[in-house]
Amino acid sequence: MQHYPSQLLERAVEEFSKLPGIGGKTAMRLVLHLLRQDVKAVEVFGQSVIRLRQEVKFCQTCHNISDTDTCEICANPRRDHATICVVENIQDVMAIENTQQYRGVYHVLGGVISPMDGIGPSDLQIGSLVERVGEGNIAEVILALSPTMEGDTTNFYIYRKLADTGVKISVIARGVAQNDELQYTDEVTLGRSIVNRTLFDVNL
Amino acid sequence: MQHYPSQLLERAVEEFSKLPGIGGKTAMRLVLHLLRQDVKAVEVFGQSVIRLRQEVKFCQTCHNISDTDTCEICANPRRDHATICVVENIQDVMAIENTQQYRGVYHVLGGVISPMDGIGPSDLQIGSLVERVGEGNIAEVILALSPTMEGDTTNFYIYRKLADTGVKISVIARGVAQNDELQYTDEVTLGRSIVNRTLFDVNL
Repeated sequence: MQHYPSQLLERAVEEFSKLPGIGGKTAMRLVLHLLRQDVKAVEVFGQSVIRLRQEVKFCQTCHNISDTDTCEICANPRRDHATICVVENIQDVMAIENTQQYRGVYHVLGGVISPMDGIGPSDLQIGSLVERVGEGNIAEVILALSPTMEGDTTNFYIYRKLADTGVKISVIARGVAQNDELQYTDEVTLGRSIVNRTLFDVNL
Repeated sequence: MQHYPSQLLERAVEEFSKLPGIGGKTAMRLVLHLLRQDVKAVEVFGQSVIRLRQEVKFCQTCHNISDTDTCEICANPRRDHATICVVENIQDVMAIENTQQYRGVYHVLGGVISPMDGIGPSDLQIGSLVERVGEGNIAEVILALSPTMEGDTTNFYIYRKLADTGVKISVIARGVAQNDELQYTDEVTLGRSIVNRTLFDVNL
């Protein structure tokens, strides 16, 4: 049992240790770093997370994180509101936005179906996706979940739920990644990349 | 340039990214973790660092971190106040306390002399150490700085400052560490460990 010379220090280190991937020694290092900063800077640091947690909203339509009731993307009339890209989480939205290749809207599930972790369809935003599609005006749903067993299970579950709506359902392409070395690519990926080959296009 | 769906999120991630060793991706992961916690828990987290920075004190005698003007160790009448152990920082005090082998008091320098980093004697609590010894009642000063060039420089500087006070000045033992393999121990350490050998003692 570590003995701390200050209870204030001990409490702050304890709080940092609760963060994922932050052990006791790292927590101590981070706290002592903050201790060397201006009072004002530390107040800004602490308030930034408190305000985020108190004031943050989730878009009523797509469940993406947002400062307003409807997120920037859903509120943007220049986006294609007939195309919904289904993703696991907020980081995935940000990653796809960064590619600047997608002009549709999103639907954030909040995870994937994972019986091992006790996550079933009702824990995810699948019901609201089915409702959204049911309201009409949707032409295509793009499934952009992780290429894992859980992702595939979730893809299949959503597919069945939407099958008789007549909406087009697509999945993002799977294949060899940019700069991957073929000899080290797993068989499933390499096999699929040959079966699902596309016409050579000089513009890509 | 990453585009964030929420300014509150962006600000919190920015603040975490300022911490040493925390990159953008880790900052995002930590912030999203906090976002999943109760509002109350996040308030406790944020307030713990703000309160630490606002309210923490440093002991007027030894400069160790403390919740009071005089730290627990300096205020403890059962400690040996005639023996001062000189260390670089707060973590070193905690490490030595954890050994439960030391009953004296401390003096926290706040670093070591390092011309490369622009740290000179006047940036450290060396003047206050000399004063403390000058007040009398001190029998021994133990130098427990890092076994580096900077630590050695600082040891030598302090030694010169205290040489004519008549106080006993000692340094912590250097040698092979517990469970070290001799064949991988550096020459300087191994050489010293032979020169500074001690009588075999069955109790150690």
